[in-house]
Amino acid sequence: MTDAHSLDTAAAGPSQPASAVFFLSDSTGVTAETLGNSLLTQFPDHRFQRHTVPFIASVEEAENVVQDINTVALTDKRPIIFSTVVNPAIRALLSRSNGHFIDLLGSHTAQLEDALQTTASPEPGRAHGLGDAIRYQSRIAAVEYAIEHDDGQSIRALDRAELILIAPSRCGKTPTMMYLALQHGVLAANFPLIDEDFTSQTLPEPLRPFVSKCFGLTFLPARLSQIRQERRPGSNYASLSQCSWELRNAQDLYAMHGIPYVNSASMSVEEISATILQRMNLSS
Amino acid sequence: MTDAHSLDTAAAGPSQPASAVFFLSDSTGVTAETLGNSLLTQFPDHRFQRHTVPFIASVEEAENVVQDINTVALTDKRPIIFSTVVNPAIRALLSRSNGHFIDLLGSHTAQLEDALQTTASPEPGRAHGLGDAIRYQSRIAAVEYAIEHDDGQSIRALDRAELILIAPSRCGKTPTMMYLALQHGVLAANFPLIDEDFTSQTLPEPLRPFVSKCFGLTFLPARLSQIRQERRPGSNYASLSQCSWELRNAQDLYAMHGIPYVNSASMSVEEISATILQRMNLSS
Repeated sequence: MTDAHSLDTAAAGPSQPASAVFFLSDSTGVTAETLGNSLLTQFPDHRFQRHTVPFIASVEEAENVVQDINTVALTDKRPIIFSTVVNPAIRALLSRSNGHFIDLLGSHTAQLEDALQTTASPEPGRAHGLGDAIRYQSRIAAVEYAIEHDDGQSIRALDRAELILIAPSRCGKTPTMMYLALQHGVLAANFPLIDEDFTSQTLPEPLRPFVSKCFGLTFLPARLSQIRQERRPGSNYASLSQCSWELRNAQDLYAMHGIPYVNSASMSVEEISATILQRMNLSS
Repeated sequence: MTDAHSLDTAAAGPSQPASAVFFLSDSTGVTAETLGNSLLTQFPDHRFQRHTVPFIASVEEAENVVQDINTVALTDKRPIIFSTVVNPAIRALLSRSNGHFIDLLGSHTAQLEDALQTTASPEPGRAHGLGDAIRYQSRIAAVEYAIEHDDGQSIRALDRAELILIAPSRCGKTPTMMYLALQHGVLAANFPLIDEDFTSQTLPEPLRPFVSKCFGLTFLPARLSQIRQERRPGSNYASLSQCSWELRNAQDLYAMHGIPYVNSASMSVEEISATILQRMNLSS
């Protein structure tokens, strides 16, 4: 399986052998991995050995994949196969391997044809390719904007921002901004809040015209202190008292200026981002 | 529908009214959007008005969503609903709206239960939450590493990189690196190739110990020139002759040092990333 990238996840399961899982696609495999992994999380006691095989474009390549699957099936449990393959000939071939073939597109396509009263015209690569060029370019432009506007580095073209994330240092502004840019094409900047903002209870001067674009993050003081300790061990910056003071004042500042905020301590970037899109009414 | 973020996609369809599409989730909605949008790309002649409603956590919230859906259904075609809701009571309630309810988890969960000979223990938020803390932390660390190592800015800890993207300026290194970091936790750096690298046909000095981690990008000269013109109109940097010369020499350099590469001109970051993961045998 030289053409697959694989990953062994040591989940909860103790001594049980890992089940082999194949994500098969005639495109990137992003959709197969996303839904497949969502489904696998419903079996937290199982361990899975994952293999992604993207860009299966020919019958010959498909036959090689079937051979790989059948080899695994010989010595191991029957592998699980998540497929988003669109090409009917390739899909039919893959479905005849010795694995459990789960077609993530097929059945739903029929449901959609029924709902839309029309026939699907499937073609691989539309979902994560360059199909919608305008939307794609906006995502790339948003990544560039995000890099320029990380951590208050630039105030150029702040009026173009759709979102300005604010928070004390190390609360998760940067990865959240980057996710919103890359996945949703949101033009986002982020700005650190510092001692003088807290004592004056005012927003950093460049942000004041844009208060309606601001969204705040808070965090747990003890966790923040721990994270800062890794960067600057023993510093006042990393002390629990400083972290508590900053977070308390940040929250007061958000409240005083009517800025929506969320405590990001127990949230993933996906969860923080979904919350921000919803609360700020930003389309993706 | 104040609590949904929505998006009108003007696809190919000319005068046909857009069909309303709801992505419903008791978590982020990422999985519902990913598979739902993949399915919708199979109907390129249709226009869709998308609404994502994440974090549907109570029967009351579900009832509000059903009301929104039914309101749309009154004046418009029956909306299409993509659901990854895990909670059985909420899912049952949502499925009784006047939309076409497509349950993206249910049927496949049964297939998986069959394959794994066990019962699913569903719980919302596992797929895009903080469930796998180690994997999550590695993604966040990779974003930080990527920002530090964008565009050759730092050569600190280059030995820790799993991937070093190289290319002439403006070939797509930065968004690709960022995607690999954020989605796959790949520790990636990127380095611009400049005139002296091309004339000497050697790698930038700091990269020489790490040639096996290098992956190159090429591009179409005319497109590259166009992109550079936007940044520096009329410059030699943006001229077609300079772009052609750089790309030709970059390709020679990759070939001479045995560095795998891909022409990124007609590929999305998802496609470039999937190609790199596969070719460099990087696990995600």
